[in-house]
Amino acid sequence: MPLMKSWVQSANAADHPFPLNNLPYGVFSTDTLEPRCGVAIGNMILDMARAEEASQIALDGGPFFGEPAWNALMEAGPGTWNHLRAQLTDLLAEGSPARDKIEGFLVPQAEARMHMPFRVAEYTDFYAGKHHATNVGTMFRGPENALPPNWLHIPIGYNGRASSVVVSGTPVRRPWGQLKGPNDDAPRFAPSARFDLELEMGAIVGQPSDGPVTVEEADAMIFGYVLLNDWSARDIQAWEYQPLGPFQAKATATTISPWIVTKAALEAFRVPTPAREVELLPHLRDTGPMLYDLDLWVTLAPEGKGATEIARTNYREMYYSSAQQLAHHTTCGCPMRVGDLLGSGTISGAERHARGSLLELSWGGKEPVELESGETRNFLEDGDTLTLHGVAHGDGYTIGFGECTGKLLPALEEPYKRQIRE
Amino acid sequence: MPLMKSWVQSANAADHPFPLNNLPYGVFSTDTLEPRCGVAIGNMILDMARAEEASQIALDGGPFFGEPAWNALMEAGPGTWNHLRAQLTDLLAEGSPARDKIEGFLVPQAEARMHMPFRVAEYTDFYAGKHHATNVGTMFRGPENALPPNWLHIPIGYNGRASSVVVSGTPVRRPWGQLKGPNDDAPRFAPSARFDLELEMGAIVGQPSDGPVTVEEADAMIFGYVLLNDWSARDIQAWEYQPLGPFQAKATATTISPWIVTKAALEAFRVPTPAREVELLPHLRDTGPMLYDLDLWVTLAPEGKGATEIARTNYREMYYSSAQQLAHHTTCGCPMRVGDLLGSGTISGAERHARGSLLELSWGGKEPVELESGETRNFLEDGDTLTLHGVAHGDGYTIGFGECTGKLLPALEEPYKRQIRE
Repeated sequence: MPLMKSWVQSANAADHPFPLNNLPYGVFSTDTLEPRCGVAIGNMILDMARAEEASQIALDGGPFFGEPAWNALMEAGPGTWNHLRAQLTDLLAEGSPARDKIEGFLVPQAEARMHMPFRVAEYTDFYAGKHHATNVGTMFRGPENALPPNWLHIPIGYNGRASSVVVSGTPVRRPWGQLKGPNDDAPRFAPSARFDLELEMGAIVGQPSDGPVTVEEADAMIFGYVLLNDWSARDIQAWEYQPLGPFQAKATATTISPWIVTKAALEAFRVPTPAREVELLPHLRDTGPMLYDLDLWVTLAPEGKGATEIARTNYREMYYSSAQQLAHHTTCGCPMRVGDLLGSGTISGAERHARGSLLELSWGGKEPVELESGETRNFLEDGDTLTLHGVAHGDGYTIGFGECTGKLLPALEEPYKRQIRE
Repeated sequence: MPLMKSWVQSANAADHPFPLNNLPYGVFSTDTLEPRCGVAIGNMILDMARAEEASQIALDGGPFFGEPAWNALMEAGPGTWNHLRAQLTDLLAEGSPARDKIEGFLVPQAEARMHMPFRVAEYTDFYAGKHHATNVGTMFRGPENALPPNWLHIPIGYNGRASSVVVSGTPVRRPWGQLKGPNDDAPRFAPSARFDLELEMGAIVGQPSDGPVTVEEADAMIFGYVLLNDWSARDIQAWEYQPLGPFQAKATATTISPWIVTKAALEAFRVPTPAREVELLPHLRDTGPMLYDLDLWVTLAPEGKGATEIARTNYREMYYSSAQQLAHHTTCGCPMRVGDLLGSGTISGAERHARGSLLELSWGGKEPVELESGETRNFLEDGDTLTLHGVAHGDGYTIGFGECTGKLLPALEEPYKRQIRE
């Protein structure tokens, strides 16, 4: 499918992230408009609350767009998702007779603030990139035990905290935590000195389930995708993660990009998972291409300085798709809900520059990453701004996700409002 | 404090679980009443929705009790919690002039169905009983590595699934899952053969936080407690839990008792945590007695047969209090929300009969538990009804939690609606 032209001229550039082919969903506000649902088209946002009020958008079961979250639309199900996309495509296409009625509901993106695009019901993070798992396993447990015995059989995952998911642009505060370095006799309570990023995709569950679902059913339940940075305190993680997994090390923040790129927009970019090294059990087998060919990269800008690309990889590097992860998530009967967010796991490729975390890029702090400013990084420094980028390259057009960015603020001098007595 | 007498006569028996000293909060319905908030008093439930409508209960910021959840009252904060308890105590006390106006709002418990008493925001499970951690660690990792190095320094916890928390009485379906026994060459997808209970207390977070909180602040944030059974598929857990912790093994269901026993009702039963083997870092130290002297026991009834007490222990056996767990939960800045539920971890004592799971009671299946029916159990069998019980023994009165019960249904013959092709 080539570029679909819109009467919003900025949407028609071959490298613009938000052409008519994309139509991603977000929540925005301006100085005069309260937070509400919006759809990106070129440099503009269509105010869905006003378009719906004016009956330019009309869907059974609505209204959907007055509240500042896309959950109501998700709940309405795939039929309604398709109707909405068809209506938006008609309204915004070149030559649309509705242009006059719609044009007044467009807001320049430059005037908008972005908010969380949906209410996160629960958040699960996976560990489904083989290069990442091998790299981290080698550092934490040695090369013989790098890949755990179960890794090639199930997409390993753990539950995270929905309350800590924030939208792109939210500053992130370096956490204090309990940690014990190799040279420490006893654990200390101190700011994390090994604070890191994880380059991931997030899949948003748009339909509930109550019992085990197949991989095919799971794919149908997914509403869309966002970029996701699972900020990680490696020193806290190393001390706490045995035997029950990461906990506080992952609880400071998880940042997502502000635009939900729908599964429909990504349809043309489906690719299969890599060849299986061990055949999966039937309930987890691929039934079609369920990864996507997405170019992903990370930039790091020290305080007041320019950004350096520190990593570049592709979502097709994952060993398990989000559909496989979601199917595994339900095997024991775990009910899934509208708004559940599944982090893919860190997406690393085979080459050094394709590694999706500083832990891997600097190999645990032993091989510093060089920045264009002349500085180096083993882990993140106060004031660093970290940004994830993602695009799919179509035939004369681009599907972009918008930036997933956050600036690291220094740790609080005293984490407790009330002093704790020694 | 002795028994406080009520004009509801059944509440005045020394061994009744719901005297005026208790006043636990639940959500109930009857054949004619939709689910709504209620307060247990003796054998009756005070219909809070009608009492509030009739202005017999009057709290600033209300109405609170029409919706089928106690979250709105929790959000109102400790001042309102105290006002409510004071009003209820006045209304229901012997000699209350309001008796005539209130009596019509009492519903016999025998006619009521109980529902989830609150909306669970997120669910976290801890591993904070030392006897349990030592027992399980010995079985999973050998006696030398029984207690992980971090165990005496932090209350180990992991995030669970709020969507799988159910109220007492809900049947639980034996799950399928991926597992690999010691004699299996490869993993299999099969029903769990080692399905188990975990006897725990659940602490309900009644106030939000946005940054690290002290142990004292954490104690003030807790609204109340329930009994909690964290059903666990041990064979699935053994295969999946490394390196990132339990996932599907704990996702089938977590059952809670229907009545929230408030912190105020438990005030007289506070006891300190056991002596510290290693001094805790200052931010996790006890600042007062924050455990409770609660007699806890478990009964198991095979299908169609009588129940046997299989374990008896006490909440004071915990090494960490819920307040310490909550404080630890916030160290990295993790925001806590109204309705968060914290499982204490399995509560086991030193003696065999004081072990809070079948895994421990049968020592991994090697020492079967004998039932009064003549049967034995290593793990749960289809049709078994498992019930947790808990009471605090006061001066001439009892504070009860109500039962936390669930019956184990057999696994589905085919877990997928649509057959998966081999």
